This record gives sequence, structure tokens and C-alpha cells, in this order.
Amino acid sequence: MTNLRHRLHEIVFEADTPAGKAFDVVLLLLILGSVAAISLESVPDINAAHGPLLRTIEWAFTALFTCEYLLRLYCVRRPVAYAFSFFGIVDLISILPAYLALFLAGTQGLSTIRVLRLVRVFRVLKLVHFLGEASVLRAALRASLPKIVVFLLTVVCLVICIGSVMHVVEGPEHGFTSIPRGVYWAIVTLTTVGYGDIAPQTVFGQTLASFVMLLGYGILAVPTGIVTAELTRRPAKTPVSTQSCAGCGLEDHADDARYCRRCGERL
Amino acid sequence: MTNLRHRLHEIVFEADTPAGKAFDVVLLLLILGSVAAISLESVPDINAAHGPLLRTIEWAFTALFTCEYLLRLYCVRRPVAYAFSFFGIVDLISILPAYLALFLAGTQGLSTIRVLRLVRVFRVLKLVHFLGEASVLRAALRASLPKIVVFLLTVVCLVICIGSVMHVVEGPEHGFTSIPRGVYWAIVTLTTVGYGDIAPQTVFGQTLASFVMLLGYGILAVPTGIVTAELTRRPAKTPVSTQSCAGCGLEDHADDARYCRRCGERL
Amino acid sequence: MTNLRHRLHEIVFEADTPAGKAFDVVLLLLILGSVAAISLESVPDINAAHGPLLRTIEWAFTALFTCEYLLRLYCVRRPVAYAFSFFGIVDLISILPAYLALFLAGTQGLSTIRVLRLVRVFRVLKLVHFLGEASVLRAALRASLPKIVVFLLTVVCLVICIGSVMHVVEGPEHGFTSIPRGVYWAIVTLTTVGYGDIAPQTVFGQTLASFVMLLGYGILAVPTGIVTAELTRRPAKTPVSTQSCAGCGLEDHADDARYCRRCGERL
Amino acid sequence: MTNLRHRLHEIVFEADTPAGKAFDVVLLLLILGSVAAISLESVPDINAAHGPLLRTIEWAFTALFTCEYLLRLYCVRRPVAYAFSFFGIVDLISILPAYLALFLAGTQGLSTIRVLRLVRVFRVLKLVHFLGEASVLRAALRASLPKIVVFLLTVVCLVICIGSVMHVVEGPEHGFTSIPRGVYWAIVTLTTVGYGDIAPQTVFGQTLASFVMLLGYGILAVPTGIVTAELTRRPAKTPVSTQSCAGCGLEDHADDARYCRRCGERL
Repeated sequence: MTNLRHRLHEIVFEADTPAGKAFDVVLLLLILGSVAAISLESVPDINAAHGPLLRTIEWAFTALFTCEYLLRLYCVRRPVAYAFSFFGIVDLISILPAYLALFLAGTQGLSTIRVLRLVRVFRVLKLVHFLGEASVLRAALRASLPKIVVFLLTVVCLVICIGSVMHVVEGPEHGFTSIPRGVYWAIVTLTTVGYGDIAPQTVFGQTLASFVMLLGYGILAVPTGIVTAELTRRPAKTPVSTQSCAGCGLEDHADDARYCRRCGERL
Repeated sequence: MTNLRHRLHEIVFEADTPAGKAFDVVLLLLILGSVAAISLESVPDINAAHGPLLRTIEWAFTALFTCEYLLRLYCVRRPVAYAFSFFGIVDLISILPAYLALFLAGTQGLSTIRVLRLVRVFRVLKLVHFLGEASVLRAALRASLPKIVVFLLTVVCLVICIGSVMHVVEGPEHGFTSIPRGVYWAIVTLTTVGYGDIAPQTVFGQTLASFVMLLGYGILAVPTGIVTAELTRRPAKTPVSTQSCAGCGLEDHADDARYCRRCGERL
Repeated sequence: MTNLRHRLHEIVFEADTPAGKAFDVVLLLLILGSVAAISLESVPDINAAHGPLLRTIEWAFTALFTCEYLLRLYCVRRPVAYAFSFFGIVDLISILPAYLALFLAGTQGLSTIRVLRLVRVFRVLKLVHFLGEASVLRAALRASLPKIVVFLLTVVCLVICIGSVMHVVEGPEHGFTSIPRGVYWAIVTLTTVGYGDIAPQTVFGQTLASFVMLLGYGILAVPTGIVTAELTRRPAKTPVSTQSCAGCGLEDHADDARYCRRCGERL
Repeated sequence: MTNLRHRLHEIVFEADTPAGKAFDVVLLLLILGSVAAISLESVPDINAAHGPLLRTIEWAFTALFTCEYLLRLYCVRRPVAYAFSFFGIVDLISILPAYLALFLAGTQGLSTIRVLRLVRVFRVLKLVHFLGEASVLRAALRASLPKIVVFLLTVVCLVICIGSVMHVVEGPEHGFTSIPRGVYWAIVTLTTVGYGDIAPQTVFGQTLASFVMLLGYGILAVPTGIVTAELTRRPAKTPVSTQSCAGCGLEDHADDARYCRRCGERL
């Protein structure tokens, strides 16, 4: 029994054996297929022509992913740890919307969230090379996170001030109907997205907007500088393994790791 | 008496004692609450339904912040130095708009400026770690300020030239009604915001706009380069303390500082 | 015979001899001229006035480029290797659309793809200096490619999730008619392009959009950081030669290379 | 006589003596005043109310700047060298449009080009400190110019291809009326400006546009990387002097320079 669970774990969670690789490739194709089906179903023309067929296909995918989720719960040694891990939650919420749609119309589109599961499947097919790059990126991003949080908090404070001022300056007759809407405009402008659905029309408003844009120009430089400084500090690549812990399902172990760094399980 | 003022200073200005921490947490919540109330009041629908209630709440917040401001003036040893310091002015102008609105309708929205006070409150709740990051950022930004000022002055000159040329080329019939409006367009384009409320329509105007955009592409790189170069030159983090001077209220003292670097008061 | 082919190869593929340089200059002018002719023909007004003339000119250009392609096939020693190399394919698809337009109206505009051939012609006219810069750039971009691919795959996953959520939140009445359209909106927003043809209109949608924009602000920093880190690791310039292999047409050989690094042909 | 010319040169071209500084401050104010006058005159409302007054003021400014130009020609030792130097040409074209407007209506707005003269005036008023920063920036930009030119040439080729393909895919009915217009759209999109005056509407066009945007995201990183790499290679600041050559008017001499590096004149 333990042997069966162990072998299932090898197949379902890992990509070192041929069976494990095959499982991951099939899963990759299933995820892509199900996302394509959901997307197609949301297009009115295609829905009108092939709606029932697409819905049947979607239910088949949902059934398959539900089985897979139960299988994962079965073969991992600490199901609770897995269920509350990042990927455990992603696995769950990628099947929930389909069942939710039985009670609440219009939510099945959220099933595309299962595209996040692809991140795990990238391990197969010689993508390990890319994983090394990904872990450098992730380490640099994690190191720059505190600075970026400080920066974003400052931006949020700034954006509330700018939005309030513009609400007073331009007023509801030019689209700035409330402070939250002014804040929305300030974010759209400061990030240089610039939809143009709300735009200042008075001379003073446009002058102020010009300062905001030049400011945005300057502070756009800050997160880039933070990430770049972190990336230049780091070596170009670190090796990773495709091992996954049989105890709690944790991945991303160092190449020479022999025990899970979270639960101490032997890999 | 001096003892009371000293103890009040510990509570109001610092975050090292439990009472000081509690004061800052309460202040944090009050600021967030008051900004939320002002924002909600500015939304027409909510204002129609709960206007009187929200206005009462706002006056309560204003009364509280006024008391707090007077308290700060009382317990700091050099009230004038505090009143004219950066945070002293922010504290004042975060209560002024509410009183101003008695005489001049529509200005109460400016009270959201008190969100800037959050910057000081960040000291509490283990945010000291973030403060270290913030001071690295601030040092790098201060060092790159002269270069960025030179850069922005050049951009302003450029933008005036481009705006004038586009005013002549496109003319009032395509929205370029005056030179200031042309300059506004040039800023919107060069910063890649691109609202689309004014856009060139003649062939020559679009050709010129294309050059401006490619130019903007190139010079967008400059402030980023400046900030990044400064950030890579610096170590990753510097320690800071949450001490605030009892004399003038200056913050951001080095971890080993024993005297205020502005007024020489013992910390 | 071999001698003629060898001399033709010197002229057609290389830029070391006066004849080779002249050939490249003429080719440069022909490509620019033909792109200008095709562009002018696509403008309705000019087409109405000078359509037949422009079409004659285009056919003359197409005839010249066809001859040149056949010449290249004749004088290179391994025609198949050339035909399937990057520039061989570009040379072919820059003449195909003109013939294709005989059967399928409206495709002659694709002939402008021959502007890509300019990349090869840059070798002449002291542009070798720039080539050195180009090869530094290319090396840095090649080194940062894996990281950028990882980054773009993550962005694609993210964009599918965001697009689906917005499709559910905003619904077809605000322009989010399907999931693919939501994904299109997410890309337009995350890359800060911001056309404004689709924009969120509900309060919840705008709140979500604000988060997406701030997120885009942060992750815009990642590819810049990657490329910058690679560029700072590299020396400022590497020397290159304008030699091209007589066997397979490969270019971009190192300055001291004596044999083609792909087919071993002596240069 | 030579003595008068020499003293005039000290005042007009340099900022080391009190008289020279005063001259530059007055010039600074005159330029700002004249740009303000021209801008105000272009606003229809203000023009209707104060048109004749503003035009008189403008002519006064033009007369002053013409005198100043003649003075510069008189007191520099090599007038031809000055007349064809960068600032000599700027000085000339900042007075030409006013005279040109006598024959050709609507060109007086181009007089704002005299704002470029401010760059020279920045020398006064302790702005020397900023000049040092400016020269670091300028050196870094000059060093990164070849790489940026290579990059922009590649972008231009790319943009022509993309524009042609979109012209064929979307066609005139969706705003892509010609290849140049398609190229304009491609530039607007790739630089993330995104006006929204032309936007793809077919499914295939939007898919293509998505790829273009993600591509723009990636290649936006390149010029930033180039400039940053150059800036990190350089020291933080270099000293400069406010001396200007009495022979040819060249500025930007090194602090310890004793002879003009262009004409050998003693400073």
C-alpha cells in the first residue's frame, strides 16, 4: 500500500522517471486544452454554435482535474500540508469555479486560473534549464520586495493626495466625479497607462497633470533601479533539481539536497 | 510638569515604549478611517444616502487631529522648530482644509493630504525593517536628484520646442489650440502616457509625433539609468532607529546617535 | 567557371572589395526605393493619381530582386544551406508577396518585409563600427533570453488569469465580451500601452485595474533589470569582420576566424 | 578697440565677472519672458483681449535679441566659427521666425525655440554644480549613442514590417488606411504611448497587437540597459569651468584648461 502510494507519488509529483514525465506532459496538454475550451466558450459566436459541445468538454476536464486532485491528496504523505501549500490551493481553486457555476452563473470563466498550474509543469521537457533562470529571478525579486513595498506604499499615499486635489480642481463635470475616481485617474496617469477615459480639461488641471506625468517619469525609474541593482549583485544562474518532497509536496530543492527543508522527509 | 511633557513626548513622538506604540497604532487607524470617510463622502450616491452621518464622522476626526496637533505643540520642547519642520507642516495642513471648507465649499476633499502622515506612522509594527530600506532608497534618490533635475530641465526645454512646432504644424483645427496645449500634448506623448484626447492628424504631424515617441523611448532610459547607477553603488541596507528628538521632533537618527543632529538635544 | 562563381560570391555576399561595396550600396538604395514605392502605393490619394506608374516600378524592383536571389543561389557553394539560412529565407519571402498578389489581392503590402534585408546591408559604408556595437547588444540579448522567456511565460499566465477575472467582473456590457478580449485588455494595460478602447467602468473593475497597473509598474522593471545586468557584465565592444562564408553564406565571423564555424569552409 | 571687444566678450560670453553674471541673469529673464509672451499670445482668449500689447512686447524682445546676436558677432574673435557653432545657430534661429512671420503667417510660434538658449544660461547662479552632473550625463549618452542608433535602426525596420502586416490584416475599414499609417500605429504601440486613435478590431489583429506589445515590453529594456551600463561605468561627477573661448565661443572647457581645445586661443 505504502509502496503503491510511493510509486504514485513518483509519477504524480515528480518528473525524474519516464512515467512521471509522461504524466506531466499529459497534464500540460490537458491544462492548455481546458483553458482553450473555456476561452472559446466565452466568445458569443462560438458559444452560440458549439455551446453544448464545449460545455461537455469542460465538464470532462473538470472531472479529470478533480480525480487528479484527489489522487494528489491520496499519495502525498501529509495531505493537510499539501492542501494548504501554494500549489495545493491553486490545484483546488482551479476546479472550484466549475462547481460554483452550478449555483452562480457566469463564474465558470474563473476556471482559467488553472493556467497557474503550468508553472509547476514547466519542470518537464528540458525546461529545468529555464528553472535555474527562474530561481535567480525569484531570488532577486524576493530581495527587492521590501524596497518595492516601501516604494508602492509611497506611491499609494501620493496617488491619494493627487487624486483628491484633481477631484477638487477639475470637479465632477470633467469626469472626476469622486475622490476614488480621481485616485483611479492618478494611477492610470502615474503608471503611464493613460486610457484617456478621464482626462483633465481645465488649464490648471492640465498643468497639474503635466507635473504628475513628469513625476511619474522620474519615479518609474525607482522599481527598475531596485530590481537591476539586485540582479547585478547575483551570479547568473543557480542549479535546481526537479525533486518534490514525498511528505509535503514542497519543490524547488537545491541540487544536492537530500532532505526536505520544510518537513525533513528524505527525498 | 516637565516630567509630564517628557512622558507625553515619549508617547506622542516615539514608538519605543508600549504606550508610544499603542498611540501610533491608534493614529494609523484614525488616519486610514478618516481618509476612507472623506473618500466615501465624495461619491455622489453614498453622499446622498449617508451624507450627514459621514460629515459628523469627519468632524469628529478633525476634532481629534486638532487635539493631537495641539498636544504635539505642547509637549515638544521647541514648538516653533516643530511647527516649521516637514511633518509639522503636514500635520497642520491635514486639519486646515476641514476648517477652510466652512468658508469655501468643495475643499474638504483636500483633507486626504493627511495620508502623508502615514509615512511617520510606518515606524511602528515591525516596519522598522522597511525603514532601513526606505533610507537606502532616499539616499540614492537624493544623490541622483541633481542629475534628474538637469534631465528634467532639458526635457522641459525640449517639450516647449516640440509643443510650439506641433502648434504651428497641426493648428487649432486638430486640437492644438495654443502653445501651452501643444506643450501639454508633448508631455503626454514623451512620457508615453498617451491619453489620445489630442492626437496629430496630418501626415507631417504624425511623422513628427513618431520621432518624438522614438525620442521619448530613448530618453526614458536616462532617469532609470541615473537611479540604478546610484542604487548599485550603495550597500543593501542601513540601520535606523525609531528615536525622535524631544527638542525639535526630528526623526531618522542613526542607530548610534546620542544627540539630535539638528538641535543638539540629547535623545 | 568556379572562378566566375567565386568572383560573383565576392561581389554579392561580401563587402571587402570595391565591387562588393558598390553592390551593397546599390542594393541598399534599391531596398529603400522599393519600400518607399510600396508605402506610397498603399496611400489611397497617391494610388489614385499614380497607381499604374507605382505598380510598374514595383514590378521592376521585384524582377531585380528575383534576379539577385537566383544569382545568390548560383554563386554560393551550398545553395540548400543558404536557402534555409535566416537571410536566405528573408531574401525569399521579400519577393514572394509580389507574386502571391497575382492570386490574392491585398498582399503586396507584405513586400515591405524586405526592409529586414537592410540588416545585412548595414555592413557597408563604415557601419562596421556599428556592427561591433550590434554584436555586443546581440550577445547580451542572447544571454538574457532564457530569463526573459521565463518572465514572458509568467506574464502570459498572469494575463490569462487577469483577463478571465475582468471578463467575469465587468461583463460584456462594458466591452469585455469574451475571455480573449479580456486577455487583450490585460496585455494593453500591463504593458502600459493603454489604448482606452476597452476600459473598466464598474467600481470593482477599476479597483482591480488599479492593482493590475501598479503590478505592471513593478514587473516592467524585470526585463530592464535582466538586460542591464547582462550589459554591465560585458566589455563595451567586440571586433567583427564583414566576411561571409562562400560555402553556406554565414556571416558574423570573428575578426581572426579563418574557417566558417558552421561548415568549415575556408573564408 | 581690442580692449573693448575683449571686455564685451567677458560680459557677453562669460560668467566669471559680476558684469558677466548680471548679463546672464538678465538674459535668462528675457528668454523666459519672451517665451511666456509668445505662449500667451497663442491662446485664443488672451490673444483676443491683449493681442496688440503682446505683439508689441514680442517685437521688443526680438529687437533686443537681434542686438545681442550682433553684439556676439562683433565681440567674438572668429565670428564665422561662432556663427556656425551649435549655439551660434540656436541664437540665429531663435530670432529668425519673428522676421519670417512678416511674410508667412503663423510661424511666430517657432520663436519659442529660443528656450534652447537657456541651456547656456544655466551656467550662472551656482548652477555650475549642476553642469558637472550634466557633463557626466552627456558623456554617458555620447558613449551609448552608437548602440542606441543600432537599436533604433532595428526598431525602425521592425516597425515598417509590423505596420505593413497590420495594414494587410486590418485594412482601411479599421483605420489602417495605408502602410505609413500602419507604421505610425506600430510606433505608437511599441513605444507604449497608445493614443487609441487607431486600434486593431479584428481578432487576428488584436492577437498580433498583443505580440507587438509584449515585444515592446521586452525591447523597452534595451536602451535603458545601454544607458545604465554606461552610467555605472563612469565616476559620479567631473569638474567643469564656466570659461568660454574668446576666439570661437566654445564652452565646456575642463577646469584646468588654459587654451581652447578647438582653436588654441588662450582662455
